[in-house]
Amino acid sequence: MDTVKYLLPEERIPRSWYNIQADLKTPLAPVLNPGTGQPIGPDDLAPLFAMELIKQEVSQEREIEIPEPVRDVYRQWRPSPLFRARRLEKALDTPARIYYKYEGVSPAGSHKPNTAVAQAFYNKEQGIKKIATETGAGQWGSALAMASCIFGIELKVFMVRVSFNQKPYRRGLMETFGATVLPSPSDQTNAGRAILAANPNSSGSLGIAISEAVEVAAQSDDTKYALGSVLNHVLLHQTVIGLEAIEQFEMADDYPDVLVGCTGGGSNFAGFVFPFIGAKLRGGRAVDVIAVEPSACPSLTKGKFAYDFGDTAHTTPLMKMHTLGSTFMPPGFHAGGLRYHGMAPLVSHLAQENEFTTVSYDQMRTFAAGVQFAQAEGIVPAPEANHAVAAAIDEALKCKESGESKAIAFNLCGHGHFDMQAYLDYHAGKLEAYEYPAEEIAMALSGLPSVG
Amino acid sequence: MDTVKYLLPEERIPRSWYNIQADLKTPLAPVLNPGTGQPIGPDDLAPLFAMELIKQEVSQEREIEIPEPVRDVYRQWRPSPLFRARRLEKALDTPARIYYKYEGVSPAGSHKPNTAVAQAFYNKEQGIKKIATETGAGQWGSALAMASCIFGIELKVFMVRVSFNQKPYRRGLMETFGATVLPSPSDQTNAGRAILAANPNSSGSLGIAISEAVEVAAQSDDTKYALGSVLNHVLLHQTVIGLEAIEQFEMADDYPDVLVGCTGGGSNFAGFVFPFIGAKLRGGRAVDVIAVEPSACPSLTKGKFAYDFGDTAHTTPLMKMHTLGSTFMPPGFHAGGLRYHGMAPLVSHLAQENEFTTVSYDQMRTFAAGVQFAQAEGIVPAPEANHAVAAAIDEALKCKESGESKAIAFNLCGHGHFDMQAYLDYHAGKLEAYEYPAEEIAMALSGLPSVG
Repeated sequence: MDTVKYLLPEERIPRSWYNIQADLKTPLAPVLNPGTGQPIGPDDLAPLFAMELIKQEVSQEREIEIPEPVRDVYRQWRPSPLFRARRLEKALDTPARIYYKYEGVSPAGSHKPNTAVAQAFYNKEQGIKKIATETGAGQWGSALAMASCIFGIELKVFMVRVSFNQKPYRRGLMETFGATVLPSPSDQTNAGRAILAANPNSSGSLGIAISEAVEVAAQSDDTKYALGSVLNHVLLHQTVIGLEAIEQFEMADDYPDVLVGCTGGGSNFAGFVFPFIGAKLRGGRAVDVIAVEPSACPSLTKGKFAYDFGDTAHTTPLMKMHTLGSTFMPPGFHAGGLRYHGMAPLVSHLAQENEFTTVSYDQMRTFAAGVQFAQAEGIVPAPEANHAVAAAIDEALKCKESGESKAIAFNLCGHGHFDMQAYLDYHAGKLEAYEYPAEEIAMALSGLPSVG
Repeated sequence: MDTVKYLLPEERIPRSWYNIQADLKTPLAPVLNPGTGQPIGPDDLAPLFAMELIKQEVSQEREIEIPEPVRDVYRQWRPSPLFRARRLEKALDTPARIYYKYEGVSPAGSHKPNTAVAQAFYNKEQGIKKIATETGAGQWGSALAMASCIFGIELKVFMVRVSFNQKPYRRGLMETFGATVLPSPSDQTNAGRAILAANPNSSGSLGIAISEAVEVAAQSDDTKYALGSVLNHVLLHQTVIGLEAIEQFEMADDYPDVLVGCTGGGSNFAGFVFPFIGAKLRGGRAVDVIAVEPSACPSLTKGKFAYDFGDTAHTTPLMKMHTLGSTFMPPGFHAGGLRYHGMAPLVSHLAQENEFTTVSYDQMRTFAAGVQFAQAEGIVPAPEANHAVAAAIDEALKCKESGESKAIAFNLCGHGHFDMQAYLDYHAGKLEAYEYPAEEIAMALSGLPSVG
């Protein structure tokens, strides 16, 4: 028996996203105005986001309808397949049943279009003509570039300079979709100019790029801002992943004992596991959930649960989250999508309530796991996804040890086609292990704002 | 109404490949031994190929059963989707109905795994442990690398040196799948050493790389050779594309008036159109078929229909085909998969019988079409596929002119994720148009063998 694919018919693309705020045991801490320390309201966010997205950010409704034009675009690649990884099971000689939900089938090659399409749609509906955003390695930027050209919106992307220079392929993808891509820090914003004045060779960071994009949106009447992770509405849109997975497990006549997802800002993890955690919170079956983060940027395991800014220049409101400090610059490991100082407030909240556990992996271990997976299953994972692969393999090896036949499911959030340089470096023995950057994190945490 | 996807259920992956040899009006010219000028038999090919593949090469059976282990692997991405390109239709303002069959959903990103999996399987069944092959831009090499690691076969790939140096990402993919990749010409074969002795800076060609791989297989008892296009059995395996498409047009309650495919060696074109041409040859509905080739390597429109070698060092048997001469070195345009001097004998035979027409496009026009397609449909095509896109768009624009509402279907044989440098060059205005290389072709044609 070979790899098995569980594919739902198109009409079973979810009709609603799942909002876990409806099922939380305690309410989420409010977002605060850094000047006043008071909770902010919808009007404060209106310069940055379309109103429907702001409503979703604070909604307590369990189900939020997916507009038909969004489902129409989803249809191009959704429902995404759930695979039973029989060849990997055989290679590991494990009694575990290993499943993976594969989001790399989207045109941009990751889960990011699930929210990019929704965000572009709501902006279009509100008559907005331009969006500014940031991107690290480029997954989010290319997803929003695709969605923006489908809905006829002009897109400006601030791309972290080190990735802009080292990863031109993602930039090529964004430009092919008609987006304007600028290296960040740039000379187009006050935030960028201030950084460049202090350090003309700054290689940039996600926190800096966010500052630039927010500034562009805040200072222009016809431009809104869009973020690819962290915020509640972004996580909401990603729940199509887990909602489909629940139905696919019914097809497979199985249910996961263990769920695994990698965490950067938290959106692919949340999208995959929230529907399962929500079912449990409503009295359904329990499942062990594991978040996997890079040991070089370990916000959940080494960060502080506190109010912090989302960006380096401190232009965003304050969110209560696990943070390494907004000035922390993560080392240059290859999983660019996991190089962020903070964690989504909703994910942080559930971590505090012990709804999941977190493990940390160095990139050397994750690439070894990614290559093993590729050779068994034929799919080369993105470096971010390799973190989930590594933890899933370790869980399967524990089953081999114990003789248990658990069902282990992970989210393969994207393919590695645009990250082959990382694999070439790995094969050539040029990849570095990164120490836990304890001092840099302590320094960044010492600068946390005192509000909240 | 947005893009529509026609997706067959998994159980409708074809159970047999379609062999057009059963329906030809006149039989295919035999393959000849270049020494004797006589037809070669199965035993002559046994050192190079698994016996089941040799039988398929000459079979006259209309249907050849697809082994279950091959269908099991196909299941990972097949049936591939057929899309109605409504957003592209709208962008073109055409009354035409545009469809595309999308083979980029395979793990290697192109149609190549359809035959790679079959070839690896038959070799494995015969107990063969090693395969040698060549690759140009790397689509074929990465597909066979994937298939080889699934079936536990060791793979050595001779990669055209210019691509080895310029396109490291495909090499990274092959290495991740465990293959050994060598730049060709290499110092590991007589053919390679002879070329290097004459020109130490040779950038290589597909014809040279074939010579090297064939030599390795011919001189070793435990190694066979594999080719990614041209041969009858390769085209046979690709017919899953067209067989699925016929069923998908039934789902769509439509039938193509025009079919379009790009041609290099001919396999994606054949795989898509042969089932439709076969239906017509057996008395079914007529359809206009268009082959699209690069104007810088125009074997069908400017080549000679004659016996020629498949490789530069003249180690292969002679095949009757449209050829530009086996010593012709195509200019360095970006569609590496279309840079071959010859055309599949079956495709050439049907061209002689006027079963389709051929058009030639320069790469500048094809990239413009590819970008237009990407911005409408969200998928970035491979440079090879851009040739089909360009011709399909031109057909749709003719419909706009005439007011006809034809159904135009093309094969989108792969995505461009590994070809983004070409798009970056295109956006930067660095891409060159190539003149038809008349003198070089005349020179190469003057050296055609005199047999046959």
